[in-house]
Amino acid sequence: MPQLGLLHGRAWTVLLGQLRRPPGAVCIGAVRSHSQVAEALFASQLKPHQEKSNFIIKTPKGTRDLSPQQMVVREKILDVVVSCFKRHGAKGLDTPAFELKEILTEKYGEDSGLIYDLKDQGGELLSLRYDLTYRSSLTYLCEVPFARYLAMNKVKKMKRYHVGKVWRRESPTIVQGRYREFYQCDFDIAGQFDPMIPDAECLKIMCEILSELHLGDFLIKVNDRRILDGIFAVCGVPESKFHAICSSVDKLDKISWKDVRHEMVVKKGLAPEVADRIGDYVQCHGGISLVEQMFQDPRLSQNKQALEGLGDLKLLFEYLTLFGVAEKVSFDLSLARGLDYYTGVIYEAVLVQTPVHAEEEPLNVGSVAAGGRYDGLVGMFDPRGHKVPCVGLSIGVERIFSIVEQRMKTFGEKIRTTETQVFVATPQKNFLQERLKLISELWDAGIKAELMYKNNPKLLPQLHYCENMGIPLVVIIGEQELKEGVIKLRSVASREEVAIKRENLVAEIQKRLSES
Amino acid sequence: MPQLGLLHGRAWTVLLGQLRRPPGAVCIGAVRSHSQVAEALFASQLKPHQEKSNFIIKTPKGTRDLSPQQMVVREKILDVVVSCFKRHGAKGLDTPAFELKEILTEKYGEDSGLIYDLKDQGGELLSLRYDLTYRSSLTYLCEVPFARYLAMNKVKKMKRYHVGKVWRRESPTIVQGRYREFYQCDFDIAGQFDPMIPDAECLKIMCEILSELHLGDFLIKVNDRRILDGIFAVCGVPESKFHAICSSVDKLDKISWKDVRHEMVVKKGLAPEVADRIGDYVQCHGGISLVEQMFQDPRLSQNKQALEGLGDLKLLFEYLTLFGVAEKVSFDLSLARGLDYYTGVIYEAVLVQTPVHAEEEPLNVGSVAAGGRYDGLVGMFDPRGHKVPCVGLSIGVERIFSIVEQRMKTFGEKIRTTETQVFVATPQKNFLQERLKLISELWDAGIKAELMYKNNPKLLPQLHYCENMGIPLVVIIGEQELKEGVIKLRSVASREEVAIKRENLVAEIQKRLSES
Repeated sequence: MPQLGLLHGRAWTVLLGQLRRPPGAVCIGAVRSHSQVAEALFASQLKPHQEKSNFIIKTPKGTRDLSPQQMVVREKILDVVVSCFKRHGAKGLDTPAFELKEILTEKYGEDSGLIYDLKDQGGELLSLRYDLTYRSSLTYLCEVPFARYLAMNKVKKMKRYHVGKVWRRESPTIVQGRYREFYQCDFDIAGQFDPMIPDAECLKIMCEILSELHLGDFLIKVNDRRILDGIFAVCGVPESKFHAICSSVDKLDKISWKDVRHEMVVKKGLAPEVADRIGDYVQCHGGISLVEQMFQDPRLSQNKQALEGLGDLKLLFEYLTLFGVAEKVSFDLSLARGLDYYTGVIYEAVLVQTPVHAEEEPLNVGSVAAGGRYDGLVGMFDPRGHKVPCVGLSIGVERIFSIVEQRMKTFGEKIRTTETQVFVATPQKNFLQERLKLISELWDAGIKAELMYKNNPKLLPQLHYCENMGIPLVVIIGEQELKEGVIKLRSVASREEVAIKRENLVAEIQKRLSES
Repeated sequence: MPQLGLLHGRAWTVLLGQLRRPPGAVCIGAVRSHSQVAEALFASQLKPHQEKSNFIIKTPKGTRDLSPQQMVVREKILDVVVSCFKRHGAKGLDTPAFELKEILTEKYGEDSGLIYDLKDQGGELLSLRYDLTYRSSLTYLCEVPFARYLAMNKVKKMKRYHVGKVWRRESPTIVQGRYREFYQCDFDIAGQFDPMIPDAECLKIMCEILSELHLGDFLIKVNDRRILDGIFAVCGVPESKFHAICSSVDKLDKISWKDVRHEMVVKKGLAPEVADRIGDYVQCHGGISLVEQMFQDPRLSQNKQALEGLGDLKLLFEYLTLFGVAEKVSFDLSLARGLDYYTGVIYEAVLVQTPVHAEEEPLNVGSVAAGGRYDGLVGMFDPRGHKVPCVGLSIGVERIFSIVEQRMKTFGEKIRTTETQVFVATPQKNFLQERLKLISELWDAGIKAELMYKNNPKLLPQLHYCENMGIPLVVIIGEQELKEGVIKLRSVASREEVAIKRENLVAEIQKRLSES
C-alpha cells in the first residue's frame, strides 16, 4: 500500500486494523458528535451561572469541532483519497469559501433556501459554497466553483482535484446525523477527449480509493442520463414529467418498486400502463450482457439518445475490463442521480454488507462516492456559451468518516493523536537544563520529541504519559548518566533499557525508528 | 531536512532552490492574483456579450482562486509548518468556519465591522471566524475558537495545532495585496506549567519553521506585556491612556520615534516629558544583557509587574540559549502587539534583509510569525471564570506565500503541478487497449501514471507533454514490443531508451524511482 506516509506507522496499522474489520451493522445516523454531547452538558450546567457570560458557549447548530482523535481519522481518509487523485495525475485547485450569490443561485434554483447567505454589509451579495445532491445523501462541492473557474480563466482542459469544506443549511432534526458543515473531495477531468477514456478512469479511481480504505465490499452502479431519458420517451412519459418521474425512480434504492409505482401513478399522475412499462426497465441490473440485451430491445433500440448511451456504456465496460474492475460495476437502470446537469454516464458507489445467511439479500449501507458526466455546465458560465465537456466524481468523505468512527467506537480501540517518537525524561531533580539541551538536539535532527513542562517531574508520571500516548522510546538522563557521558534509552513496550553514549544517541534513535 | 515527503523529490528541490535565494528587494504588496487579472480581462470582454449571463463571472472582492502552481507552493509551506508542529507533539483540532456572532464580537469589540456576518435566515446569528491583528500585519486564527473549545469541553491542558481558512472584510484598496480570505496556522499550549518552558518552545518552533523555509535571515523580537505596562506606569502615563499609547509604540517598526512622539503628544494629549521618558525605554533593544540592565533601572525596578516580566524574560533567554536560538531573539521594548488579551511575553518574527553595503541598516520586510501568552482568554468563556493559561504562535503563511510566489516570478522558474512519474505512450495506432492494461498495472502498483485520452495519439505530442510537465519516465509500447514481450522504458531527461521484459517493468520502474 503506497502513499500512506502521513501518519506514524503504528497509528496507521491500528487504524487500518479497524478499517479492515467487516462492516457489520453500521448505523450511520446514530453517530453523536463530541460537541453535541458537550453542548447538552454545558447548556444544563450554564443555567444557574450565567452571570459571567450572558450567552451559551456552543458551536453553531449542525456544526461540530473535530477532536484530535477525529482529526487523525479524517487526515488518514483524506490522505488515501488525495494520494489516489495524485496517482492519476491530477493538479490541486482551491476556490474561495464563498461565491457571488447569483452564481450559486442561478445553478441551484429551487433549493437555494439551503444556501448560507452572507449578510449584506455593503458591496457584493455572497453565499457560502454549497452542493445539491443532499437527496441522494452525497456530496458535491466543486462542480459549480470548478465550472466558474474554467469559464472565467478560459481553461479548456484540466484534470484537477479539490478538497475543502462546504456548507448547507439543512435541518439537522430532519436529516439525522447530517452536518451543516463538511468536507468534500472532488476529482474532475475537463476537456474534449475520445469517448469514455476519462469516464473509465473516474470509475477506476473510485475502485482504488474504496479498496484502499478497506470499508468492506462495494458495488458501483452505472447508468446513462440518455438511456433513462430514452426509457421515459419510449414508455410514453410526457416530456414535462421527465424530471418528476426521474426523481421517483431515484428512490428505488430505498423503497420498493410497488411504492415507487404508486407514487408515479397517484402522486405524479402517470398512466398505470406507462408506469408498468418503466418498471420493466428500471428493475433491471447486470453487467455488459445487460447492455447487449438493451441494444436488442425492440422499443429502446428505436431511441437515438438511448442508443448513444448504450454505445458509450459498452465502451465503458470494455475499458473497465482492461482496468480489472468490471466485476465491481453494475449497469443499473434505476440509477437516476438528482442533478439536472448530468448529460451522460452517471455512477454511484454503495457499500454492500456481506449477508450472514446465504439466502439473504445484500443490504446497502448507503452511497459513499458518486459522479457523472456534465458537458453543459461550463457553457452556462461562459458569456459565449462555449462548452467544456467534464466528467468527475466526489468521494463521500463524511459518510466514510462516520462509518470508520462508528466502527472504532464499536471496537473500542484507541488511536494515537500525536506522532511523538521519543520522550525526554529524568528521575532526578534539577535536570531541566539537560533535558532542554537534549530535546533540542532531537528536534534539530527531525525527531519528534516531547518532555514534561515541569522543573522537577517525578519519573513515574513521565513513563505513564508515554504508555498512555503510545510513545515508543524514552531517553532518561540522571546524575549517574551525566557523569558517565551516557543516556539511558528505554523501549516503552519491552521496558528494556540500554545505556548509549551521548554522542551516539541521535544515530541510535534514528536507527531504531527506521527499523520499527 | 526531514518531513518533506509530500512532494515529488524533484519538485521540492526546485522549490527549495527558489526558497534558498537571498530575499533581495521583495515587494509583498505588488503580487497581483491570477484571478484578479482574469477578472479584469473578463469584465472588459463581457460588456458586449452579456446576453448569456446577466452577471459578471468573478470571485468575490478580496478573494482569489489558487491555481495548481500556487497550490504546490502553499502545500509545501503548510507541510513544513505542520511537520514542525507535529515534531513538537501537537495534536490536530478543527473548529467550524463560523461561530455564534456573540462569541466573536464579545472578543473583538470595536473592530467587529471587519467580521463577515451570515444573513439572518432564521435561527442563530453567525459570523465567519476572524482574527484581529491586522494592524501588525499578522494573522491570528484560532485563539478565540480555541479558547471557546477549551472552555466548552472543560479541557485544562492541551497542545494543539490548527490550520484553516479565516475571513476578514478589509478593504483591499486600503490594504494593498491583503486578501479577505486566507490560511492560518496556529500552535498553542494550554495548561498550568512551570514558567517559560512552553513559551521557550514556541520561540524554538518559530526558529525551526523559518529556518526550514529558507526565507533568508530573520529576527524574533520579544517583549512582555507587564514590562510595557510597567514602563507606562513609571513614566507617568495615566492608566486610561495605556491602550492608546501602546498602539502608538506599536508603530515604531514602521515610523520614526520622532513621529511616534508627535502622535503621543499632539494626537493623544500626553505630556511631552512623559513621552520623552517613554522614548528612553522603547528605543532600546538587545539580548539578555538588556534584561539585566533593566533589572537595575532605578525607575522600572520599582514596578512589581515589570519585575515579574523581566524575571520571566531572563528565564526565557536561559532556555533559548539551551535551545541554541538565543542569538535569533532580541529583547525589543518597542514591541507592543495589538491585542489586549496578551498577558505576558509577546513576540514577533521579522525577515531581515542582508544590507548591500556594510553601513546600511538592515531593512524589515515585515513580520512572518507572532504570538504570546494569553492567560485570561479561556476564563472569559467559562461560566465560572476558570482560567486556563495559554501561550501560542501563528505563522503568517499568506505573507510567506507572497514572498515565495514573488521570488518565483522574479526568477521565472517553473515548478511541477503534478507528481506523475510515468507516462504510457505508443507510436502506433490501435494500441489503446494495451495502454489501458499497462497503466492499470502501474496504478495498482502505486505508481503515478498518465496517458493521453486519445484512441490514436501521435508520439511527438506525447513526448512533448512529458517534457513540459516534468514527467521523468515514459513507457512506450508498439507492435514490435508486443511481439517480443518487452516494453521500451525511456528517460525523458537523457532520452535514453532500454527494452525491459514486460513482466519486469513494474519492478524496474520502482527501482529507478527509488534511486532518483
